[in-house]
Parts: sequence; C-alpha cells; structure tokens
Amino acid sequence: MPALSPSALRPVSVSPRPVALSATLAVNEALARRSRAGLPVLPMGFGEAGIPIHPALTEALSAGADRGGYGPVAGSDELREAVAGYWTRRGLPTDADRIVAGPGSKPLLFALLLALGGAVAVPAPSWVSYAAQAALLDDDAVMLATPPGEGGVPSPALLADACVRARAAGRPLRAVVVTLPDNPTGTLASAGTIQRLCEVARDHDLVIISDEIYRDLVHDPEESVPSPSRWAPERTVLSTALSKNLAAGGWRVGVVRVPDGPFGARLRDSLTGIASEIWSSAPAPVQHAAAYAFGEPAELVERIDASRRLHSAVVRAVAGRFTAAGARVPRPQGGFYLYPDLEPLRDRLDGEHGVTTGAGLTGLLLERYGVGVLPGSAFGDDPGALRMRVAPSLLYGADDEHRLAALEASDPVALPWIAGALDRLSEVLADLTRDALEPLPEVC
Amino acid sequence: MPALSPSALRPVSVSPRPVALSATLAVNEALARRSRAGLPVLPMGFGEAGIPIHPALTEALSAGADRGGYGPVAGSDELREAVAGYWTRRGLPTDADRIVAGPGSKPLLFALLLALGGAVAVPAPSWVSYAAQAALLDDDAVMLATPPGEGGVPSPALLADACVRARAAGRPLRAVVVTLPDNPTGTLASAGTIQRLCEVARDHDLVIISDEIYRDLVHDPEESVPSPSRWAPERTVLSTALSKNLAAGGWRVGVVRVPDGPFGARLRDSLTGIASEIWSSAPAPVQHAAAYAFGEPAELVERIDASRRLHSAVVRAVAGRFTAAGARVPRPQGGFYLYPDLEPLRDRLDGEHGVTTGAGLTGLLLERYGVGVLPGSAFGDDPGALRMRVAPSLLYGADDEHRLAALEASDPVALPWIAGALDRLSEVLADLTRDALEPLPEVC
Repeated sequence: MPALSPSALRPVSVSPRPVALSATLAVNEALARRSRAGLPVLPMGFGEAGIPIHPALTEALSAGADRGGYGPVAGSDELREAVAGYWTRRGLPTDADRIVAGPGSKPLLFALLLALGGAVAVPAPSWVSYAAQAALLDDDAVMLATPPGEGGVPSPALLADACVRARAAGRPLRAVVVTLPDNPTGTLASAGTIQRLCEVARDHDLVIISDEIYRDLVHDPEESVPSPSRWAPERTVLSTALSKNLAAGGWRVGVVRVPDGPFGARLRDSLTGIASEIWSSAPAPVQHAAAYAFGEPAELVERIDASRRLHSAVVRAVAGRFTAAGARVPRPQGGFYLYPDLEPLRDRLDGEHGVTTGAGLTGLLLERYGVGVLPGSAFGDDPGALRMRVAPSLLYGADDEHRLAALEASDPVALPWIAGALDRLSEVLADLTRDALEPLPEVC
Repeated sequence: MPALSPSALRPVSVSPRPVALSATLAVNEALARRSRAGLPVLPMGFGEAGIPIHPALTEALSAGADRGGYGPVAGSDELREAVAGYWTRRGLPTDADRIVAGPGSKPLLFALLLALGGAVAVPAPSWVSYAAQAALLDDDAVMLATPPGEGGVPSPALLADACVRARAAGRPLRAVVVTLPDNPTGTLASAGTIQRLCEVARDHDLVIISDEIYRDLVHDPEESVPSPSRWAPERTVLSTALSKNLAAGGWRVGVVRVPDGPFGARLRDSLTGIASEIWSSAPAPVQHAAAYAFGEPAELVERIDASRRLHSAVVRAVAGRFTAAGARVPRPQGGFYLYPDLEPLRDRLDGEHGVTTGAGLTGLLLERYGVGVLPGSAFGDDPGALRMRVAPSLLYGADDEHRLAALEASDPVALPWIAGALDRLSEVLADLTRDALEPLPEVC
C-alpha cells in the first residue's frame, strides 16, 4: 500500500499543555550548555548531593541486575521490610505493609496528591514540585508563608485561616505539605511550630505530608527532627528516598509510609492502584540496592555522617561569604542549601544593574558570571524579594576523586578547588554589589 | 515537648480516591498468594515475557551502576541517540531530539494523555492502562470496537463517527491509541485499516499514539508492522520499551518518539515539563543499559529472535488446546498473548457452572483450577462475552535454567514442563466444558 504523498500531511492543531521544565532541572541544563561552550560556571542551582555513589551500593545494584520482573507494585518485601526498620529505628514503629515504594519520592508525592484530591497547603517558599504537581492535576496549591527562620512549614495560624477560607469558598483543603529539614531554605522548623501545625491539621481534618528526604542530613547530630508523625501519627504520611543522603537521585527510588489504621490502609490501596496505572513499580535492581541501604549498614551510615559534615562545613562557609557581602542568611541547619536575602543591597543592585526582582538577580548571576542559583520565586516566594536558593554541593569536585577527597577532608573548605570556588563567589558578589561611583582599588 | 496523648487522635475522614490495582498486576499477586499457600497454579495472567535478562544487559547495567546523578529529563544523549537509530533502522529517520525516555512506557503514555488533554479513543479491547490512565485524569476514554480479527485498532468508521459525536457533545477527541501488534488479542491490524485510521485522524485532527512495544515480536519475520508513522508521520507518537522483547519490565525504562516539526517540538517540551515534575528521569544505570540495547548488538538481536520463536510456538500450541476444547481463537500474530472466545461453549458453561460472563469464567478458572487469565472485560471488552486474555509466557520455566532451555529448544512445547502445563490446561478445559450428564469415560 503506497504511503500518502507528503502534500497530504496536514499540520496538527492540537495544543499540548504548556508545562515549563522544573526550575531546578532547567538551571542544571542551562549550566551544562554554558559549560560545553567553554564558559566558566559556578553551579549552585541543582539539588544533587555532590558525592559519589558508595561502592557498596553499586555492588548491591549489580547484585540485583538480573531482576527483570516487575515484582509487587508497592515494592519488594525485602525493600518494604528494610524501610519499616528504618522508620522503626527513628521512633516510629512501622509495619512493612505501610510502605509503598516508587521510582523516586517525586512520583509518590504526585500520586499522594492525586489520591487525596482537592486543594493542598504548601509552604512559601517550598520545593518547586509540590505546587507544580498540584497544578498538573488542576488542583489548588495554597502557598502560605512560613514562620520567620522556620522554612518548610506553613505558619499554623495562616494555615488555620486558610482552612476556614477554603471551606467557605467550597474548595476545602485536604492536605498540608511540610519539608523537614527544608528545601530551599536549609532551615528546620521547631517542635513547637510542628505541634501547632498538627493541632490545626487535626481541627480541620487535613492529611499532613511530611517530606523528610533531608532528615538524616541535619547538621547537628544532637538535634532531633520534629516530625509531625510524633503528634499526629493518624494523619501523617512520610516520604524519603536515597537521593539526598546517598546521592542516588538518578537511581529513582523513593518510599512513603502511610499512617497505621483504616485511613492509612485506604490511602495505601489508592496509592498502589495509582502506581499500578502510572509506573508499575520502582526499578527492581534499584529496589534490591535500596533494601540494603535502608538496612543502614555501618559503611553507609559512615558515608552519610561524612556527607553531613561536608554539607555543613560548605554551606556555613558559603553563608559566610554572602554575609560578608552584605546579605542576610538564615542559619542553615540541614541538607545542603542556603537561602540568602540580598534585600540590604537592594538600592545598589537596582542602581547599578536595574535588578529589582529575585529572577532578575539570578538571571544576572547566570549570564554575567556563570553562577547558577535559583530565585526564591521558583519556590513560590515573593518575586520581588531578592532571595535565592544556593546549593553549593556541586562545588565539592568535578570528579569522584575530588568529591571523595572532600568527603574525607577534615577541613573541606581549605581544599584548593573548594576554596577557589568560594573565592570566585566572593569576587562575584563583590563585583555585583560594588558601587561604580566608588573608586576601584587599583585606581586609587 | 510531650506528644499528645493517643486519646487526642482523631479519625481521618478524608477519603482517598478509590483506584483498583491494575488488573494484570492484581492477577499476578493473587497467583503468588495461591502459590505461597502450596496450591497449584497455571499462571497465564501477567504480561511478562518469561525469559531471563540477557547477561550482556546485566553487565551493561552494572557498568552504569555508579551513575547517581539525575541527568537530563528526556534521557541521556547516549540513550536518545541509540533510540533514534532504532527507529531510523525501521524506516523512520529520527533525530535524537525527538526522543523522550522515562521510567517505563507506562508513565510516558500517562504524560502524553496529560499533555494532550481531553478525550481519547482507545480500542475495545485494549491494554488495561490506557483507559485507566484517562480515568485518573478525569478524561473520557471512548472505547471503540476493533475490526474483526484486527485487535489494537478502533474501527476507522467507528472512530470517524465518534469524532463527530464527541465534537457535537462539546468534548472533542484529541487522540487515538493503537497497539501494534496488539495486547490483549495477539493480532496485528492490516495496513489497509491503519491507512484508513490515519485518514480519519487527519480529517479530525487527532494525534495518534502508536504503542509498538511488541513490534519486534511479530511471529512471522517477513510480516511488516503497519505503523501509522508511515501514513501520518506529522501526528503519530510512537512508544516502545525493553519490557517485552528483552524481558526487562522491572527495569523501568521506556521511550517515545514525537513527530518531526513544530507540533512534535511543542509536545516534547510539554512531555519533558511534565516528566520533570512527576519523575525527573529514567533510572540512570538502566538508561546506560538501554542505550546498549537500543543499539541492537548481535547478541541481543539473537535473543529477541529466539524469544519470538518461543512465543510463537507456545501461543500456537495453547491456541490449539483451546480450539480442541471448542473455543474460537483469533490467530495470534505477535507478542505472547492469545484471546480465546468460549462463546461456542456458553450453554454448557452456564448450565454446569452458572457462568455467564467473562469475569465469571476467569474467576472459576482461578478459584477451582488455579488458572490465572484475565477476562476480556479487564480490557474493556463486553462483560458478557466469554473472552479472556491468555499469556502463556510464564509457563516457559520456573527458573532461569528452564527458561533458557525453552529459549534454546527447537521444539519448546515438547519440553516436559511446558508439555505438562499444556496437558494440565487441556484437562482443565475438558473438565470445565464436560457435560455432567454425559457419561464420563471411566464410567463407561
């Protein structure tokens, strides 16, 4: 049968839904293009842990490489048992039947929003995908400011108010998302705030989705994470993954823990039903490696300890550079982010560069200096604020040899490639905030 | 801060969306439970290829095991280049920028429906997840009967009619799904039918989603697959994966090819935007192995050839057993499924067993005999029809040693474990369709 002639082709008028690339992934790709073009970059936009995969993990993946079958939708027994142990060791006795695994915690969070339906409250600022996922489902994401210095948690008072308004408007809130510790601010909410949030959630019958992917990366090992599962276990869904503490983001495995009791069972069944139609299962070889990792063997615990020390040292050093340049920086407490506010430099940034928004600022940093960071607006923050998320973990090294050296260094910020990056950052910030009318040193 | 007392727990009244487990995965899990209880099973419900992962593939996965980074949303350059080559070798010149990879073709199909929005036409019967995915998105899936003996493609005349009706109802169809060769029927639509479908799609401005995951498993190597990309390249989106031809379903990697031209570019951007918010990327180590596989090295081509011969021999033998028992079976042409119709036995099934529906029939087969198959209704077929999908590939062997022997056998149906399963099937069918009033042989 002859093919139709090309003249018979008719343009397609269907308009695909316009969806922007996730901001974190987009900046990563922009920097990669710049790098390929031979331009200097200071990549601090993307949320990767910047450390190598531990060899014991790659071995475990190889050992599972012959697993070609789909396996159970919720994850292998082996993986779910290991994850149950992980949460049990954190003070939350957990049965394996409460665990659902998936190809990343990102799809699991999407499935949670789909399972719960309706509007969801999220902190402003917060991780880029919570609100974006709700938008894909045509659900409302109600962005609520966090208490000062306590990122990752909507202010309980604002949340209570939003519940009342949303119910009055006929679109009641079904859930609230918290991030402990927080991305993008690197801060950790207090136990008092979380307890008040739990009370509001209970009063207004909200499900609490607690994203604890950075939980094991709280800088001070004495500091405990105030998980809402402590105060509202009946309505708290927890999520975590290997992406951040073991730098296995590209492996695609995440897990959620649904509450004990009948609501949790219904939610699990809904989640697995959704999973069976959208993604079938997490990658089987990766599940095998993840089961090993969630068992917390000594060598991986040591690796996570080392990464925590590295993250802490570098974010503190970067925070110091921003502070020295005149920015305000909330004290980073966990993970590998900081969230400087250049408000004190607004007049100079406007006068010298015409910069009046966060996106204007980060655009200038990218285009003029190759510094990749994300504006607060990418996280739902006020577009006019001069805040940005800085993720210095990609400065740990350009290859695994340097990254391992950083992990093992007692003073990682003194390593030449990290010190060099910090100095470059200081230069950029100095140049950015220099008053052109002020005589330059060499001219004096 | 003390935890609230348990008496403060308040039951959660939020009702998660009820979503049934995908029927194919559910029957698999039911059989596994039966098997663990020591009951005999004849597992023919689940769409796994039933062959081992090729050692060269596990080696490629191990070689990529240290890839912990997320990488580009649409997939690594290496993978997209390899997939472009795969389609180019099939007569469709393809640029790597038209390829989007994801953690399975299932999530990619979901993202396609989300990107295109609106109602979609799907064949009845068809793979369980097309309509289920549309339902998750609250979109209409319009099920349209296929031409007789040509599964996987809505009848072009019915499609044209549905387009007119849908438009009149204010919910115009945006896309039509075809499966070449088909799951569940194992048949392959004719070139004439596909060409007419392309004309209807063009007349009514539909996007064609052509799921060609079984493409390399057409039994007769001389038979060419009539892909709609031949007649309507400007509006055809292709999908495939490694799940079926290389039995790597549990690895979770699939790919789509969007059309050349501006519509395809917009669709790709929408897909990658959606991917960036729902799943980030396909698993990086698996992408590395998939790049190797889509390069079609000789050892994998041989493996696929051997699996095609095995699938063909076994489905033909199983079809023969059903035919001998009095069923009608459309001739299987590709993949590893057949779709017997027990309509000729309706009176006996009703009289002896009270069976009047496909689900009644498959329920009886599962509960009385441990035979796991899926009713046609799971695929959107008429619930009253006595049709079922039979997937004999899990009979190839209980372990890799037996499965390899099956792959290598010149007459696999003579192998004792396959012959035994076939004989058991014949016994079951004989018992099921025996007229109790008819004197049994041993009584004569």
